[in-house]
Amino acid sequence: MCDTSGWAATSTRHARAGLSRLIEPGDLLGPLTVEVLGAEQTLELIASGTGPTPQEQQRVGEAAEASGLTARQRRLPAALQRWRTRLPQIRDTQMLRSLYRCGGGLLIPEDAAWPRQLNDLGPAQPLALWFRVAAGDSDPYSLAPARLPQAGRSVAVVGSREMTDYGGKVAWETARELAAHGVSIISGGAYGIDAAAHRGSLDGAQEDGWPALAVLAGGVDRFYPAGNDRLLHAILDRGIILSEMPPGSAPTRHRFLQRNRLIAALAAGTVVVEARWRSGALSTAHHAMDIGRPVGAVPGSVYSASSAGCHRLLRHTPAQLITDAADIMELVAADGADPGWPPGLRPAASAAVTGDAESRSATDGLGEVDRRIFEALPVRSTTTPSRLSEAAGLPMPQVLGGLTRLERKRLVHRTGGRWGRTGHQLGRT
Amino acid sequence: MCDTSGWAATSTRHARAGLSRLIEPGDLLGPLTVEVLGAEQTLELIASGTGPTPQEQQRVGEAAEASGLTARQRRLPAALQRWRTRLPQIRDTQMLRSLYRCGGGLLIPEDAAWPRQLNDLGPAQPLALWFRVAAGDSDPYSLAPARLPQAGRSVAVVGSREMTDYGGKVAWETARELAAHGVSIISGGAYGIDAAAHRGSLDGAQEDGWPALAVLAGGVDRFYPAGNDRLLHAILDRGIILSEMPPGSAPTRHRFLQRNRLIAALAAGTVVVEARWRSGALSTAHHAMDIGRPVGAVPGSVYSASSAGCHRLLRHTPAQLITDAADIMELVAADGADPGWPPGLRPAASAAVTGDAESRSATDGLGEVDRRIFEALPVRSTTTPSRLSEAAGLPMPQVLGGLTRLERKRLVHRTGGRWGRTGHQLGRT
Repeated sequence: MCDTSGWAATSTRHARAGLSRLIEPGDLLGPLTVEVLGAEQTLELIASGTGPTPQEQQRVGEAAEASGLTARQRRLPAALQRWRTRLPQIRDTQMLRSLYRCGGGLLIPEDAAWPRQLNDLGPAQPLALWFRVAAGDSDPYSLAPARLPQAGRSVAVVGSREMTDYGGKVAWETARELAAHGVSIISGGAYGIDAAAHRGSLDGAQEDGWPALAVLAGGVDRFYPAGNDRLLHAILDRGIILSEMPPGSAPTRHRFLQRNRLIAALAAGTVVVEARWRSGALSTAHHAMDIGRPVGAVPGSVYSASSAGCHRLLRHTPAQLITDAADIMELVAADGADPGWPPGLRPAASAAVTGDAESRSATDGLGEVDRRIFEALPVRSTTTPSRLSEAAGLPMPQVLGGLTRLERKRLVHRTGGRWGRTGHQLGRT
Repeated sequence: MCDTSGWAATSTRHARAGLSRLIEPGDLLGPLTVEVLGAEQTLELIASGTGPTPQEQQRVGEAAEASGLTARQRRLPAALQRWRTRLPQIRDTQMLRSLYRCGGGLLIPEDAAWPRQLNDLGPAQPLALWFRVAAGDSDPYSLAPARLPQAGRSVAVVGSREMTDYGGKVAWETARELAAHGVSIISGGAYGIDAAAHRGSLDGAQEDGWPALAVLAGGVDRFYPAGNDRLLHAILDRGIILSEMPPGSAPTRHRFLQRNRLIAALAAGTVVVEARWRSGALSTAHHAMDIGRPVGAVPGSVYSASSAGCHRLLRHTPAQLITDAADIMELVAADGADPGWPPGLRPAASAAVTGDAESRSATDGLGEVDRRIFEALPVRSTTTPSRLSEAAGLPMPQVLGGLTRLERKRLVHRTGGRWGRTGHQLGRT
């Protein structure tokens, strides 16, 4: 379906452009019909105004059944009626041309550059991805491929619009550190945590990196929310802005929730920095879990409403607790053996919490006997070996042997026939 | 071993009192030898100065091997030598009498009141428990049984001495709420989180409850740390103070770590409120896990060193995230079906985090079609059904049917031939 340049045929691109206008995200029969009949033929069928042939209906019905769609979702004639309602809106070639002029274009599954990780969405995969990469004269199609998220080198950092200073700091710092290690940060371009994560990724970016990726719920031609206009323009310089909705589309609540599945599927893992008890960020996390991607959540004060959703995830789902960028690297690295994943910020094999976790002290590494002798020694005075034998509950030969070993380690000192600790090392745990 | 009063014979009590002086906690062959030979005979053997008979050695050796002790730990002659070093310190009858006068006594496994949950410690179970319950004229042996922790009605709340205001607040509030529900709080009597938990339990206690239980690393005759003297005396009025170390024993680091296993074993579950990366509170948590008790940890700021140990537990162990007293009730209630456990603070079946967690809004509970219609309506103006059909991507009959349903729910209103939303319900998640 794509020529040697890696790009699909123009007719296919135009057909998918039109279809992305007609078929609402989440309308699962749409992508299935396109998969079975092809983009051009599906568009023709919709535009023709006629019903599907029995053959067409059967082929689509079988594929839909195999994908687990309900009997109602599988009804092609009803779907065609739905999709026809927006036919008056189709101005595909013009739409593509005017978007091209402002640095954008359309990616479709038939393109070599299509992010294959979206396949994990199964029947919920998008029909196409509208993108914007620049405002200048450059050819957006030559810029886009390098800026798309690599399957294993991108992380979604998401959260509530109502963030605290704490959440903003965590989002900014972790995104910055990840970007500095060549990881792209994917978020939703919203106020609050999303914006902090985008900003962090831009601030931490490597010279030649493409750190920032925003997935919008509405069209890429008008940035939403307006207050993030400057931020989203900055992303055009150092990343890419995506949407499955065609230019001119308004962001509706339904589309925000659908958009979240794209964020989850594009990233190697999703981290929720702050979320209220009910928050759209949780839906992104659940989309990620549904397709088997690792999810992390940042803890916070139990008194902060902005952390309640994160705590909820940590209590009731397999979400992993995240305290810093290194934890995120571990989260996504543990998941797959992606060869392209950059080396971790700290050794991947994290220090296990051992059974005898305790304060580091002078007696760390001592044997049982030597430790008992050391601890039986008075802290600020000295004692005789026989008193020490009684205090430690150990026979004299063991006490004398232990004192010699401890003296060699400079933990104890002898004054005449009496022994004491070296310095003050009262340890308590 | 105990008469109809429920108390063991005096000779057994005196023997265990002496043994608790001779045998250091963690010296696993001690309790095993006592189990095999009996308390009196073990003490006689130690005091006799002679070696064990081949029979004695064989019986103890077999029990020790069955309990998984190493060959070295199993050597009875070497153990007898260790235990003999403190023989000069035994003044058992006097010790018991003077402690009795200050409101204390000795509990031993042969007593009916012995907390059976300690059996879970296996070979690490204590030889005896020294206790203190009052400073007055009352008979401590008549007061103690009611104040001991019931297997399923007590929770350990522990943490670092270096606590933050946040940690202190969480410890105090959760302990207070649990105590108000008749749950006893077990902690270590230390500064910081321990003290906050003890205070909370005393402040929240029911009239007839015994909310506070402190387990000390040193003797119960002198309270440590001195700065908590008033608090520990307050616990005497409303609870009990325990230690496996006999009166006069100093708290050493080794004994603090050993003490932690008693806190873990006495409680139905252990909650760590604040702990640094290396903290004794983590050892209590691990003791609890080792014997299959549930463990919880309170999250906090990722920038707080005092929460680092809790986050470590949450990341690398099965510890459950705790945000309030209700979470703790759920933690311990989920574990066992203890019939005596008080009803939870909120329905035990916690609200699951569903896949489509989202802000509660006007469209909650609407069907897919109605939701799409509602969302396609302009927020601050009105529109015609045909425009709505196009905007929503749904055929006219569906749009008209949906509008009627939405009108019945008072979510939309009609003005002439145009439709709009009722009020302002712009929802975004």
